[in-house]
Amino acid sequence: MAHHDGGPMADDEWLGAPSPAAALVTGGTPADDFHVFDTTLRDGAQREGISLSVDDKLTIARLLDGFGVGFVEGGWPGANPRDTEFFARAREEIRFQHAQLVAFGATRRAGGSAAEDLQVKALLDSCAPVITLVAKAHDRHVELALRTTLDENLAMVADTVAYLREEGRRVFVDCEHFFDGYRANPEYAKAVVRTAHEAGAEVVVLCDTNGGMLPARVQEVVSAVLADTGARLGMHAQDDSGCAVANTLAAVEAGATHVQCTANGYGERVGNANLFPVVAALELKYGKNVLPPGGLARMTQVSHAIAEVVNLTPSTHQPYVGVSAFAHKAGLHASAIKVDPDLYQHIDPERVGNTMRMLVSDMAGRASVELKGKELGFDLGGDRELVGRVVERVKERELKGYTYESADASFELLLREEIDGRPLEYFRIESWRTIAENRADGSHANEATVRLVAKGERILSTAEGNGAVNALDRALRAAVEQIYPPLAEIEMANYRVRLLSGSGGSGSTARVTTALRGDGHAWTTIGVGSNILAASWEALVDGYTYGLSHLGVDPL
Amino acid sequence: MAHHDGGPMADDEWLGAPSPAAALVTGGTPADDFHVFDTTLRDGAQREGISLSVDDKLTIARLLDGFGVGFVEGGWPGANPRDTEFFARAREEIRFQHAQLVAFGATRRAGGSAAEDLQVKALLDSCAPVITLVAKAHDRHVELALRTTLDENLAMVADTVAYLREEGRRVFVDCEHFFDGYRANPEYAKAVVRTAHEAGAEVVVLCDTNGGMLPARVQEVVSAVLADTGARLGMHAQDDSGCAVANTLAAVEAGATHVQCTANGYGERVGNANLFPVVAALELKYGKNVLPPGGLARMTQVSHAIAEVVNLTPSTHQPYVGVSAFAHKAGLHASAIKVDPDLYQHIDPERVGNTMRMLVSDMAGRASVELKGKELGFDLGGDRELVGRVVERVKERELKGYTYESADASFELLLREEIDGRPLEYFRIESWRTIAENRADGSHANEATVRLVAKGERILSTAEGNGAVNALDRALRAAVEQIYPPLAEIEMANYRVRLLSGSGGSGSTARVTTALRGDGHAWTTIGVGSNILAASWEALVDGYTYGLSHLGVDPL
Repeated sequence: MAHHDGGPMADDEWLGAPSPAAALVTGGTPADDFHVFDTTLRDGAQREGISLSVDDKLTIARLLDGFGVGFVEGGWPGANPRDTEFFARAREEIRFQHAQLVAFGATRRAGGSAAEDLQVKALLDSCAPVITLVAKAHDRHVELALRTTLDENLAMVADTVAYLREEGRRVFVDCEHFFDGYRANPEYAKAVVRTAHEAGAEVVVLCDTNGGMLPARVQEVVSAVLADTGARLGMHAQDDSGCAVANTLAAVEAGATHVQCTANGYGERVGNANLFPVVAALELKYGKNVLPPGGLARMTQVSHAIAEVVNLTPSTHQPYVGVSAFAHKAGLHASAIKVDPDLYQHIDPERVGNTMRMLVSDMAGRASVELKGKELGFDLGGDRELVGRVVERVKERELKGYTYESADASFELLLREEIDGRPLEYFRIESWRTIAENRADGSHANEATVRLVAKGERILSTAEGNGAVNALDRALRAAVEQIYPPLAEIEMANYRVRLLSGSGGSGSTARVTTALRGDGHAWTTIGVGSNILAASWEALVDGYTYGLSHLGVDPL
Repeated sequence: MAHHDGGPMADDEWLGAPSPAAALVTGGTPADDFHVFDTTLRDGAQREGISLSVDDKLTIARLLDGFGVGFVEGGWPGANPRDTEFFARAREEIRFQHAQLVAFGATRRAGGSAAEDLQVKALLDSCAPVITLVAKAHDRHVELALRTTLDENLAMVADTVAYLREEGRRVFVDCEHFFDGYRANPEYAKAVVRTAHEAGAEVVVLCDTNGGMLPARVQEVVSAVLADTGARLGMHAQDDSGCAVANTLAAVEAGATHVQCTANGYGERVGNANLFPVVAALELKYGKNVLPPGGLARMTQVSHAIAEVVNLTPSTHQPYVGVSAFAHKAGLHASAIKVDPDLYQHIDPERVGNTMRMLVSDMAGRASVELKGKELGFDLGGDRELVGRVVERVKERELKGYTYESADASFELLLREEIDGRPLEYFRIESWRTIAENRADGSHANEATVRLVAKGERILSTAEGNGAVNALDRALRAAVEQIYPPLAEIEMANYRVRLLSGSGGSGSTARVTTALRGDGHAWTTIGVGSNILAASWEALVDGYTYGLSHLGVDPL
């Protein structure tokens, strides 16, 4: 085993398998005979729109470890300073419970020696216990992109694997463009697998680098390569044909025991095989124990948390973990779900940490409004006329651009208005105004003024903010808090803007949703208007109104 | 053949196959031995967030026909007034070139007769030449959701199919929950298929209604059912396991000759099998001729146009048609792509109407900046120092939240600033200000004032708009147009806002992109700021600056 620059943790602990103590605490890590290998931090980061800081990478590594993957590929040490720094800091700052950290790199240069290759040295210097080497397996790529001979490419694989093994590392080899290479020259592609295997690579990963494969072909090729080479095989799928999850599962059916995936399917072009549906299928459909106990139930939370870190809105329609994945809208289904939820769900959403939702929409009609009402604590079953009125109001507002599918608090306010015959009101607005001023020297000011009346008092409130909406929010809060001090407990958790007219310019209709929280509770409201400020205002007023009601404050 | 309420088109034309003339004009429609069946307007509309007007449905039906699908399922006539109206108007307003219109409905009620069933009558009244009947194929659903006997369910299928056939319609039968039903009671599930087939259904469609299947199982079941029943089979897959495309292709490999899909995979919960990757795989990977000539090359445009109509942002990472589907970012890949683009693409993007793009990102480094420069018409190959400066600027601005991956015009302005040593300037801003006022009675005013200097003139411009950004845009345009009249040719095509701090409230950093067009050209710019107005301002100034330069106007 190699010894490097020391640091606070012994190499043994860093390089080795999880300690028995960790296994006891977590209930155990699945055996090494099946590898769940995550490459979000390396291949996933290639996605258009993603740019990760070292802190982001550390946070994601912790989340993946908590989920229970066996391997976290952290980047390419030496290729850019950020990845080098990541390995240095991960070593100091993370104590993995389940995962081993993996460094990614290339085989030695043509004509050189592995021991003297600077890039190979950077891999060792990362102190990662596992190293994935990318190797060319397609003859044309060896000649055109690598510009060397087919034999020298094999020597590069053999030398680099053997050297890293001598230095005490576990080595996996990614065969880039394997499937296209196999079609062009199957004997050469298999020779690369055999060379890596014989040099001591623990797993040889067949990569569908351009993502063009379909499952039947993957299964055929993996079976043939397994039979011919006897190497332990892995699968790395890209999603260019929309089949990356299925291709990964097809490889497992053919005998692969190592799957390379990324959280939420992030990756270059269309993306990589999505870790979550792959793991869920292995656990729930194939009955394989590939995660430590409790991991699967954290899946939805981990997926959303990683989306937050990479700063992408979580895909609402992602299998298993999307907020829509178990959301029911169709009237036909809504009636059947009253009978038995399992009729329309392939798994119990709680197994993956998700929940079933009923959506309020004009398509669903009465049954959905009744079910949604019940979910919110209102029994509407006996009042057909009331349900009819609510359905009408929802339809009419959906035409204007509202959607109550996620804005539960605004829906509840609408429902209560129909039940009580008047809106729930804590204050009456006279007017509001915002002013934004900007000068060429970069100085700027955003100011808002709100005038409202409540409990016989007239309040004039002015506030500054870092933008017009922020100033407006502050002025409104300040005014309402003067009358209702408990409002101080409520804070904004999220604010989103969507412009509705697809083809429009800056004059489109705006839809704003705000998520507020306080008193251990969270709620979402919606506003629609001809501009962002007007829509924001409506969502804020709904949000504070619902919040005061939730806090048990009496209305006007 | 049934004769109904007349209308401007003869029933023969409406109900029949495309006329020979249409076939000549369009170059022919694929033979009827393989069906591409689209259900965007019926099942796709169940997606959370989609609510389609009759006009939306007509527009989408035309787009799908232009793409070349064989069948467009328009809705459930009689179930809601919108769908009834759609069929009435489609009959008057659309002259399909390739597609036949399909009405969806259920088998007759238990204990009734098909001829007297109001819901069945509504199907006939729609005058659609093809009818899809949904039938229960899972014994438990018959008992729990339909509340009838297994035998009566078979009689309902037989009677309704036979009656509609007598009335001259083509009939397809969707066997709901087929795969779960087949697991629970294979003999009964097959009896439903056999009953439908023997009663005259042209295709019996096996539906994975809750989307839980995986391809290997689909292939096994479809093969067995085909061997046992001899019926022509179709596949309807939902994407809850992330395998809907692969499941659809697996069914085709097993002998299914009819695929039910939706544009962009829209549908309930996670969604349906995505029409585009299914059709692309059939055409490009299986070599099947399932679309008329020219259809495939329209795929990207049709996908994006349908997203516009349903008012969802087109998924950037959708296989084949996403704007990122052939976008290259990784430094490793960027160097290889210089050698041969086919090394990293599974198909030529032009075959599906898409294009390759090089992304500018700090991960890609020098090679990408050079390639992108070349794409924009600047040869940077000889100037290592210049390329280094551009890479530095891009990195620094990406840290602040900018992204040049799609904002080509802002990237070109940055590049020219580094080449020329100074920014391209047409005007200098002194200050700008916006005021938004709103009263309780709903009256409101949005006003902006811009002060700028150009060619020795100082311009003060004030404008109103339907929101603060819109007012600011108008005031800026008015000011710049006074100095540069050609600006009148430029208009805004799109405006988007993204709030960057994932967890932030209304005080997040804002990123705005604007797409402008004029003189037959379109360009995108980006602005980032502490609020939406500041970010919008920056994007607008870049947009008009680039536009004036494109129009050949001399700068200051």
